[in-house]
Order: sequence, then C-alpha cells, then structure tokens
Amino acid sequence: MTVPRYQARVLVRLRPSVLDPAGEATRGAAERLGVEGISKLRIGKAVELEVEAPDAEEARRRLEVLSDRLLANPVIEDWSLELQDS
Amino acid sequence: MTVPRYQARVLVRLRPSVLDPAGEATRGAAERLGVEGISKLRIGKAVELEVEAPDAEEARRRLEVLSDRLLANPVIEDWSLELQDS
Repeated sequence: MTVPRYQARVLVRLRPSVLDPAGEATRGAAERLGVEGISKLRIGKAVELEVEAPDAEEARRRLEVLSDRLLANPVIEDWSLELQDS
Repeated sequence: MTVPRYQARVLVRLRPSVLDPAGEATRGAAERLGVEGISKLRIGKAVELEVEAPDAEEARRRLEVLSDRLLANPVIEDWSLELQDS
C-alpha cells in the first residue's frame, strides 16, 4: 500500500508587534530604485516540503509539531500552513 | 481620487538546481525531533507588502521590477507573485 504524499508550505512571519528592520531597509531600497507606493513590507520564511503520512490529519499534525518546535520561533514569529494532496 | 491599494506576496525560492544546505539540515533536525516522512524541504523567502498603484497591471509591473532587481538574486533564485485587491 503506497502511503499518500502531501505537498505543504509553511509561512513563518514575524509577529505584527515585532519590528522588521530588514523589511524596512528593503522598502527604502525599493524607493531609491524608483519603485513607488510600496508599504508594510515584511520579510518572512516560506518552507516548502513533501510529507508522507497515512492521511491528511496526520500530515497536518506532524507539520504543526515541525512548525511549533523547529520552523518558527514562538517568541517572535507566527506560522500558517497550506497543505495539498500531491 | 483614492489610489487603489493591492496586497501582494512575492515568494523567492532557490532554483531547483541549487543545493539548499539549510533545508537539508532542517530536514535532518525534523527527523531527530521524531517528525517522520518529510522530504524535499526547501527554505525560501516570503515577502508580503502593500502597493498603491493606479491599476493591477501597474502594481504587477512595479512588483516585477522590485522582485527582479531587489528581492531575488537571479543567478540562484526564482520568484513568483501573488496579487490581491485589498
């Protein structure tokens, strides 16, 4: 029996209350580049992966553990999960 | 006349041909954490922002310049753009 494989993307963002100096610097650079109208530029991580699991619930459970304990720093970051059947 | 504002997300990924040591190390750490079945783990950037522009085409054009010349390193990275009316 082949175990189903799911494609997932975990987006890790700085919490809104946390300053984003890199994002701010990038916004300034955009302006100097002549790209106008940019605001609220925030830089986060996009972790893409595949997970083999018996079903979608188990895949989701494993990715929640992975995100909470490895991909995101809970003190300063939030994460969100997008899961697709592959 | 208020200028429309668009929410956008630019995903910047390493090209498939480029090794991802950080992704590989994270996959290993996941295994040691007891999170099984993870493969093809790749870490990229998720840049979220708002852009004020007369219309969606102009917003898209500005974000293409921003992505090509500032957000992504064309030698080793690809980027993709998600644009929404806000």
